[in-house]
Amino acid sequence: MAGNTFGTLFTVTTFGESHGLALGCIIDGCPPGLPLNEADIQQELDRRKPGTSKFTTQRREPDAVKILSGVFEGVTTGTPIGLLIENTDQRSKDYGNIKDQFRPAHADYTYWQKYGIRDYRGGGRSSARETAMRVAAGAVAKKYLQTKGIMVRGFLSQLGPIKVMPDVLTEVNWDEVNNNPFFCPDPSRVNELETYMQDLRKEGNSIGAKITVVASGMLPGLGEPIFDRLDADIAHGLMSINAVKGVEIGAGFDSVTQKGTEHRDALTPGGFTSNNAGGVLGGISSGQDIIAHIALKPTSSLHLPGDSIDVDGQPVTVVTKGRHDPCVGIRATPIAEAMLALVLMDHYLRHRGQNADVSVSTPVIPAQAPVSDTTNDT
Amino acid sequence: MAGNTFGTLFTVTTFGESHGLALGCIIDGCPPGLPLNEADIQQELDRRKPGTSKFTTQRREPDAVKILSGVFEGVTTGTPIGLLIENTDQRSKDYGNIKDQFRPAHADYTYWQKYGIRDYRGGGRSSARETAMRVAAGAVAKKYLQTKGIMVRGFLSQLGPIKVMPDVLTEVNWDEVNNNPFFCPDPSRVNELETYMQDLRKEGNSIGAKITVVASGMLPGLGEPIFDRLDADIAHGLMSINAVKGVEIGAGFDSVTQKGTEHRDALTPGGFTSNNAGGVLGGISSGQDIIAHIALKPTSSLHLPGDSIDVDGQPVTVVTKGRHDPCVGIRATPIAEAMLALVLMDHYLRHRGQNADVSVSTPVIPAQAPVSDTTNDT
Amino acid sequence: MAGNTFGTLFTVTTFGESHGLALGCIIDGCPPGLPLNEADIQQELDRRKPGTSKFTTQRREPDAVKILSGVFEGVTTGTPIGLLIENTDQRSKDYGNIKDQFRPAHADYTYWQKYGIRDYRGGGRSSARETAMRVAAGAVAKKYLQTKGIMVRGFLSQLGPIKVMPDVLTEVNWDEVNNNPFFCPDPSRVNELETYMQDLRKEGNSIGAKITVVASGMLPGLGEPIFDRLDADIAHGLMSINAVKGVEIGAGFDSVTQKGTEHRDALTPGGFTSNNAGGVLGGISSGQDIIAHIALKPTSSLHLPGDSIDVDGQPVTVVTKGRHDPCVGIRATPIAEAMLALVLMDHYLRHRGQNADVSVSTPVIPAQAPVSDTTNDT
Amino acid sequence: MAGNTFGTLFTVTTFGESHGLALGCIIDGCPPGLPLNEADIQQELDRRKPGTSKFTTQRREPDAVKILSGVFEGVTTGTPIGLLIENTDQRSKDYGNIKDQFRPAHADYTYWQKYGIRDYRGGGRSSARETAMRVAAGAVAKKYLQTKGIMVRGFLSQLGPIKVMPDVLTEVNWDEVNNNPFFCPDPSRVNELETYMQDLRKEGNSIGAKITVVASGMLPGLGEPIFDRLDADIAHGLMSINAVKGVEIGAGFDSVTQKGTEHRDALTPGGFTSNNAGGVLGGISSGQDIIAHIALKPTSSLHLPGDSIDVDGQPVTVVTKGRHDPCVGIRATPIAEAMLALVLMDHYLRHRGQNADVSVSTPVIPAQAPVSDTTNDT
Repeated sequence: MAGNTFGTLFTVTTFGESHGLALGCIIDGCPPGLPLNEADIQQELDRRKPGTSKFTTQRREPDAVKILSGVFEGVTTGTPIGLLIENTDQRSKDYGNIKDQFRPAHADYTYWQKYGIRDYRGGGRSSARETAMRVAAGAVAKKYLQTKGIMVRGFLSQLGPIKVMPDVLTEVNWDEVNNNPFFCPDPSRVNELETYMQDLRKEGNSIGAKITVVASGMLPGLGEPIFDRLDADIAHGLMSINAVKGVEIGAGFDSVTQKGTEHRDALTPGGFTSNNAGGVLGGISSGQDIIAHIALKPTSSLHLPGDSIDVDGQPVTVVTKGRHDPCVGIRATPIAEAMLALVLMDHYLRHRGQNADVSVSTPVIPAQAPVSDTTNDT
Repeated sequence: MAGNTFGTLFTVTTFGESHGLALGCIIDGCPPGLPLNEADIQQELDRRKPGTSKFTTQRREPDAVKILSGVFEGVTTGTPIGLLIENTDQRSKDYGNIKDQFRPAHADYTYWQKYGIRDYRGGGRSSARETAMRVAAGAVAKKYLQTKGIMVRGFLSQLGPIKVMPDVLTEVNWDEVNNNPFFCPDPSRVNELETYMQDLRKEGNSIGAKITVVASGMLPGLGEPIFDRLDADIAHGLMSINAVKGVEIGAGFDSVTQKGTEHRDALTPGGFTSNNAGGVLGGISSGQDIIAHIALKPTSSLHLPGDSIDVDGQPVTVVTKGRHDPCVGIRATPIAEAMLALVLMDHYLRHRGQNADVSVSTPVIPAQAPVSDTTNDT
Repeated sequence: MAGNTFGTLFTVTTFGESHGLALGCIIDGCPPGLPLNEADIQQELDRRKPGTSKFTTQRREPDAVKILSGVFEGVTTGTPIGLLIENTDQRSKDYGNIKDQFRPAHADYTYWQKYGIRDYRGGGRSSARETAMRVAAGAVAKKYLQTKGIMVRGFLSQLGPIKVMPDVLTEVNWDEVNNNPFFCPDPSRVNELETYMQDLRKEGNSIGAKITVVASGMLPGLGEPIFDRLDADIAHGLMSINAVKGVEIGAGFDSVTQKGTEHRDALTPGGFTSNNAGGVLGGISSGQDIIAHIALKPTSSLHLPGDSIDVDGQPVTVVTKGRHDPCVGIRATPIAEAMLALVLMDHYLRHRGQNADVSVSTPVIPAQAPVSDTTNDT
Repeated sequence: MAGNTFGTLFTVTTFGESHGLALGCIIDGCPPGLPLNEADIQQELDRRKPGTSKFTTQRREPDAVKILSGVFEGVTTGTPIGLLIENTDQRSKDYGNIKDQFRPAHADYTYWQKYGIRDYRGGGRSSARETAMRVAAGAVAKKYLQTKGIMVRGFLSQLGPIKVMPDVLTEVNWDEVNNNPFFCPDPSRVNELETYMQDLRKEGNSIGAKITVVASGMLPGLGEPIFDRLDADIAHGLMSINAVKGVEIGAGFDSVTQKGTEHRDALTPGGFTSNNAGGVLGGISSGQDIIAHIALKPTSSLHLPGDSIDVDGQPVTVVTKGRHDPCVGIRATPIAEAMLALVLMDHYLRHRGQNADVSVSTPVIPAQAPVSDTTNDT
């Protein structure tokens, strides 16, 4: 399978460059009978849309999605769903100066060495604009998963040095998360984030971030050992997002210093007593919340000059013009949610494909024991 | 593709349970003409083999591999390579007591809920014994990659609280790494590790670890955007290893607090000046060393009692008998190397499948600028 | 992989219904550097286009294709190529009467039972209109294959009782094939075909056909044993075309009555002396012409009434209105060529992915021995 | 996916050469809970086994299969099933003389040009011996399908000029089919077949054959449009069998001369009135019997000399020694059944993966109308 398709049964194949005519995707394998219209998808796209605050790129794209197929009389038919977003605000002239230069920490050099040609306008295919189609496809997955009781949501957990990870996941107010441009779970910290970003902007620099995504209402049984473990496919999906440099499931790198007695989550009839596992045991969902964290590197496009080379291998100093987010992490929450939703959707279908005959009398353990008032998951 | 196959062009499909008759795998898509014999594979298996030190499980398996096909007169033929390891030391009686119980932090509960049946002997398919076939298949990938100048190697970078990550990767003495049972890059720290493990063993507890894997001699151009980025596939492969809870590429989670000017690696005609990227830009290898770190959770099988439930959903206290590693990370280095090698091998073939016509006149940047005497990669 | 994607390295994913907004596809894995514009694709689409003669459906669609991505400054970039054809002539009202009925020999009943919903307008996804995107994608494959000297071409070999299969393939005048609306290789028989079709139209009936596709200029080595043999993948691709009920490679069903001495093609330094194999031995191309034949069933949409049932399971008599080809085979030649081209393209890339290191000193046998003046291939 | 794996959810990956140590396969994705033991598989292997009559190769292999994994306490666990058959009767010395020659109509030349190396002993990987693992895997699929009421069976329908295709499929006595070494559905014709084969053997020649496979008890809904239609995947599976040169579904090539009124199968509440479709409409099963026919070429290994070349491109005369079937079609029935079963199995799982939510009130049409006493299916 070529590299622009994701999934096994529920697949998403995308195309499109930053400054081409359009972005699009084909969602294949969607179960029939799901009510779906453009507004369902648009509302997710709008969460990711650039230009919504002064801390994101000022490129103004309506990102209006059209459903071209696969939906009939408001309901999915089981045939492929074609989605299209036309590009409207393509200021290609901004990019002429980098035609023959490789911007540091960008894909310019690697695309060039791989393909011998690159669409340099806005990074072409390597632009984060590509993630719009992930969000669009993820919206369909999310909607289906909701019919099974599964909610996929995320938030900013850290912006540079500022940690806003909540102590207790079950107390996150998800409405608040969506009510500020940072997807910050704690509204009282938004001012602090704004101040930080304003200072950063003055400096002309950029910063990394950490995002947390959570799937609640999970069922046990999703995930295919050995290689297509649920956590492995989540890692695949999340690491495939532009700028992501690290992925953790549950306790993640904190596991390194944990002892066995500390890490292992006890099972009780009333629920697990902690969630160091992040909802996955042996590659299969346990029914606990799936919890994943990702690290995003700082935006590489800076107005501050950087050392690089040109296509002839000669040293140059690159100053990136164009419109860019000073922190790509700010808009990454909907993208990470989308990738998690795509993985869960695919595994939901794969699981019932193989195991629809199975019935087990053992009761399903609740996601969280009611007696627990703290989580160890970060 | 079902869950026990890894790769697209160079594929590995494995089978086998901890206490079944045998473990095996089929490697498909191996280029023909590669000299290969059982000793090539055995030497990698011996690096992972249990029972090599007092800090690993005392189960004694020769893990003697047989090549059943795909090699003729000492050379690969391009047809599938069948590998087999017979299980010889299966003390199934050790596991009778957990037949109806779910060991905490193990896959017992999730396999049961997914499949309605499980081979409880030693964890069955979920046992880390399965990783032997990854190492065996990885040995073939490694050998081929070496013919292209690519070396895949790894080491322990942290054991619980003890950090042994070297400051400068280029100064790692790889012979030393393989000369101690911990794969510790710094021989002067081995005593410290031994003492820590002895104390842990007395306590009856276990501990997490961090492993670093490195591919040097890389070529630019490997990796398929958008979803099958090289780093995404590396994350997939590494997260699919038992007990892994986190994966980082290059600067990983350190990127969260880095500024753009700090993170971005400058390109100069003489080499990159740092390697925060971990050798991957836009999902495509840059020619720099690939650097990845993984977090492994502490062994879940403890002689210390833990709370759980049984198949009827009733609370039980589980004490794990059997033979186990107190730190699964100790033996994980060869496994992580194998998974990295499999990913690179597959992408090497995929890349030349699509791009064998490409010729680029831009010189390839050396992996590391000779003027640089420090790396930022951790 | 879901069902609307074809290929492994060079993949085509399609979407679109007969009376939806648009048809589209994503071609992934195309080698970079191939000159490509819309006219290259349009000329193939025009060969398939409905409404070109009185013997094909009178639906008039310009089938104007747009390239949305993957091409920069007239050359492919190696990133996915998005293609779009907007539907313009959708007379949905013609189909209201079959909303609750299952037309015999159509996919109405099976889609309904599978998905519980169907876009009944013009057959929705099951319409042969879907094949436009195969032709569009095939045009790209053809163009690349030509750069390697491989030509993929086809013709009508039989229309109902009228056989127009040439005796000697090497004497086919390919310009003539494209100069008549039947893709008939013998221009002297076109009148006969026209008369037959006029009589059939008066009768209100339809007829089957046989198409032959040929790839010349082949290289030895394409095809992946065991399951992805070149001939198996060709059979897959050709049988996936609407209305196809049979596929033959080389001698095909004539092999049943052939003796070994008759079937086996002798190898001589000057060339093979016959081509019963159809260019494939052991699933791998021999360098001879690839020759495949397909059987297409007669159009199922007839103005003559047929027995069927409705969605309640009650008997009904169906009379199909709408605009239809009385012989789907007439327009099938470009579609069959496209599918053969897609298979060859994919295997070309797969082959060099695995085997680019191979060099063999044995000379390649010419496709056809010059001393041979007859072929046994049909 | 590399070429030795078949299927999407229920996958079979095989390895092994004719004269290597063993043949083996891994079945992945099998639903858990299926009772399975070695005898279930062995009985199918014994149907295919060489040496069972004087008309098949005299190579005597017990073909004793071992289940190495995936079955626990007599029941499948959902984890991969490893199967192994050790080779015991490998008379490699028979093949030394063809080491440097390419046998006509064999894969010798094509493997050599593709891989630059070949295991010449008995054809190595290209030997029909490989099909043993298809039969073994097919036995598992068959057993599962039977739990859903689906029976997959086949017979010889033609041997050279002798046609033994029954007029009415529903009257085939399946016990009789398995009671003669030809899988002939008409026991009164067995003598005729024996005489023909004896004459052929004296002549030193070989002959082609036609096999018919049937799946009865089908459910509607299996098959994934557009490219993975059920018939397309059946064609893929059947054409991948050694020596197969043609595949027909239902009326097959007879469709070419059929009119629409003749071909289209009427739907009535009591059943379809004919089965020209072969049980597939629009790529999806209709619930009618799946009917497919395949053409097998005559054995290429003849004691009669044939013209060829050697590895230096020089002309040689080849006389094949070794033990061979004079008609590969005689033993092909179980192989064709196995491939059909694998396709149906995979699509059964894929279908319920996507469509398990669907409920349709339209009654399922019986496979065959009770009023019909003839079939048009050949």
